[in-house]
Amino acid sequence: MTEPARRIGILGGGQLGRMLAMAAGKIGLAPAVLDPAGDAPAGQVAPLTAARWDDAEALARFARSVDVVTYEFENIPEAALDAIEAIVPIHPPRRALAVSQDRLVEKDFLSGLGLTTAPYAKVDHEEELSLALATIGTPAILKTRRLGYDGKGQARIMSPGDAEAALAAMAGAPAVLEGFVDFSAEISVIAARGQDGQVAAFDPGENRHEDGILRTTRVPATIPATLAADAVLLAGRILNALDYVGVLGVELFVTPGRLVVNEIAPRVHNSGHWTQAGCLVDQFEQHIRAVAGLPLGDGARHSDVEMENLIGEDVAKVPRLLAEGADLHLYGKAETRPGRKMGHVNRLIRYP
Amino acid sequence: MTEPARRIGILGGGQLGRMLAMAAGKIGLAPAVLDPAGDAPAGQVAPLTAARWDDAEALARFARSVDVVTYEFENIPEAALDAIEAIVPIHPPRRALAVSQDRLVEKDFLSGLGLTTAPYAKVDHEEELSLALATIGTPAILKTRRLGYDGKGQARIMSPGDAEAALAAMAGAPAVLEGFVDFSAEISVIAARGQDGQVAAFDPGENRHEDGILRTTRVPATIPATLAADAVLLAGRILNALDYVGVLGVELFVTPGRLVVNEIAPRVHNSGHWTQAGCLVDQFEQHIRAVAGLPLGDGARHSDVEMENLIGEDVAKVPRLLAEGADLHLYGKAETRPGRKMGHVNRLIRYP
Repeated sequence: MTEPARRIGILGGGQLGRMLAMAAGKIGLAPAVLDPAGDAPAGQVAPLTAARWDDAEALARFARSVDVVTYEFENIPEAALDAIEAIVPIHPPRRALAVSQDRLVEKDFLSGLGLTTAPYAKVDHEEELSLALATIGTPAILKTRRLGYDGKGQARIMSPGDAEAALAAMAGAPAVLEGFVDFSAEISVIAARGQDGQVAAFDPGENRHEDGILRTTRVPATIPATLAADAVLLAGRILNALDYVGVLGVELFVTPGRLVVNEIAPRVHNSGHWTQAGCLVDQFEQHIRAVAGLPLGDGARHSDVEMENLIGEDVAKVPRLLAEGADLHLYGKAETRPGRKMGHVNRLIRYP
Repeated sequence: MTEPARRIGILGGGQLGRMLAMAAGKIGLAPAVLDPAGDAPAGQVAPLTAARWDDAEALARFARSVDVVTYEFENIPEAALDAIEAIVPIHPPRRALAVSQDRLVEKDFLSGLGLTTAPYAKVDHEEELSLALATIGTPAILKTRRLGYDGKGQARIMSPGDAEAALAAMAGAPAVLEGFVDFSAEISVIAARGQDGQVAAFDPGENRHEDGILRTTRVPATIPATLAADAVLLAGRILNALDYVGVLGVELFVTPGRLVVNEIAPRVHNSGHWTQAGCLVDQFEQHIRAVAGLPLGDGARHSDVEMENLIGEDVAKVPRLLAEGADLHLYGKAETRPGRKMGHVNRLIRYP
C-alpha cells in the first residue's frame, strides 16, 4: 500500500463537502475544497478554491495542491474529472460515477450483478415509451437518465393517457421507464471499502421521504435480521464489483419477497447522517479514511438514532432544537430556500 | 436574552481551540482564531489571525470581527483581555481567569465556598516556607502561584532538607505550599453553565497521570454514586459563584472522607475529551453553545469510554490506532516533541 494521503481535495462544497472536510480535520488530515460558488458552506471550515468546472487551469492547480481527490456529488462534468485525474488519483473510482450518473447504466449494472431492480426500460422517444409501457404497465414512472435527484426530472404515468405529458416533461432528454415497486419500507445501507479491499457497512436505516426529499432516517430499520444481513451483503457485492474506494449509499425497497435496489450513490449519503450520533466512526470519517488509504474505522452502532432533515423553513425550528439539546448540525447556509437542506438533527432513541 | 452570537472568536489555536472551532462549525456558527503562531493547529480548520498578545491593534481588529470571544487557555495576558473586552464580551468571565491563574487566589476562593482543598500556605520567601512547612509538614509540594500546568513549576519537598532546593526552583516567583493528599483516585467533572444560568455536568471521569501529564480518562469513574453526585453539585456551586458562562473543568481527589478540589480550569479540559465518543453533545459544543448564548445540549452519557492521550512519540502508535478503528483525533501538529499532546483516542468500553 502506498503512503496515506495527507491533503484531501474535495469536489463540491455543500453540506456533504463541509462535513467531509471536518472529518478530515478530526484525524489530522488537511482538507481543501473546490466549488464554483465562493460562498459554498464548506468554505467556512476549509480552504476553498472558487472555480468553475470548465476552468481547466484552476482544476489542475487544485489537483497539484492535494494528494487525493474525492467528491460530494456525482454530477461532475467528465472533462473536469479528466483534468484532475491526469494529476492525482480520484476516489471513489470513475466507473462508480459513470454507473450512478446514468439510471439505465446503473440498472444494467445492478441486474448484471444478479440484484433485483424495479422493472425498467430505455426510453429515448415516443415509440420506445409505448413499447416500455406495454411491457411494464402502469402505474410507472418516467425518469431522465442523467442529472436527476431529489425527485427532479421525473414524471408519473398513472395510466397510458399520461404518457405524452410525461415524455414532454423529459424535454428530449434520454429517459428510462420504471415500474412501480410495491414496498413496505425504504431502507438504505451505507457501506465503505478501503484501498486494501476491506469492506464495512453501517446498519441499514429506514427512510421516510416527503415530496421526493428525505425527511427522516431511523436506525435500526424495522426489518427482519435476515433482510438486514441481505442488505449488507448486497452492498458489499456492489462495492467489490466496482473495485470501490470510499463510502457508497444504496437505497433499497423492502418487498415481501426480497430487497429491490432503487439506486446507488457513490458518496456519503443523507441517509447516513445518523452515524454521527450512533457510531464511534461516522460515514464522513469512514469515507475520508478510505480515500486517504487508511484503514476503515469502527462503524458498529452503539445507539439507536432518528435523523431528521431540516429543509427550507424548517430552520424556524432551530431555537427549539437547540433547546432540546439533541445532536444538531447546521450547514452555515445564509439563504433559506424551499426544498433546500439547511441542517439535520440526530436524536438518540431512548426506550421507556 | 440577547441575540445568539454567530461569529465566535477563539483565543489560542492549539488543539482545544481547534476542536472548539470545529464544534462551532458543526452548529453553523463561524469561528475565528487568534494565536501568535502562524501555524497553530486551529488554523487548519478556521480562519487564523496570527498576532502577538501585545499587538493591541490586531487584537482590536480581531475583536471587532466577532460577536463574542472565548479562549482555550487561562494564561492570556491581562492587557490583551482588556483590549478585547473593551470591544466585545469575553466568556467565561474574567473573574474565573483571575481565580484560576493564581493558585493562591484559587485555593482561597474554593475554601471560601466551603469546599475542601489540600492544606496550603502562601510562600513568597524562605521564612514563609519554613512557617508553612511547620504547619503543613512533609511531604509537601511547592508550586509557583502562576503559569504552572502539566507539572511545570513544581518541586516536591519530601523532607525539610529539600526546602532550599525547592524554593530555588521557583526562581523567585511567588509560590504556594500544598500538603500531599492521600487519595485513592483522581476524578474530574466537566460542567457547563449557560448565559441563562442553566447548569449541566458530564459524568465524572477517572484520570490517570504520568509525569504530571494526563494519560487516560475513564468514564464512569469507579466511585460510589453518592460521591459522583457530590462532585457534580460541587461543580455547580463553583459555576454559580463565578456567574460562569461556558465549560469548566474541576479536578478532584477522592479521599476516604470526602472529595478534595485539586484545581479548576475555566475552559474545555483534556479530561473531557471522552465526551466526543460518550455523549450526544460533547464538551466543545457545550462550551460554544454557552458562550454563544444558546441553550446547553444533552450531555447524558450513552456509552462508557476510555480516552487515551497521544503524547510525543505516542504518534508512532497512530497506524495501529487507525487500524483498530477507534475514535481517533489528531491535532495536525507537524513537529513531534517530548511531552507534546499530538492527539487522543476514545475507545468505547464494551463489557463481555
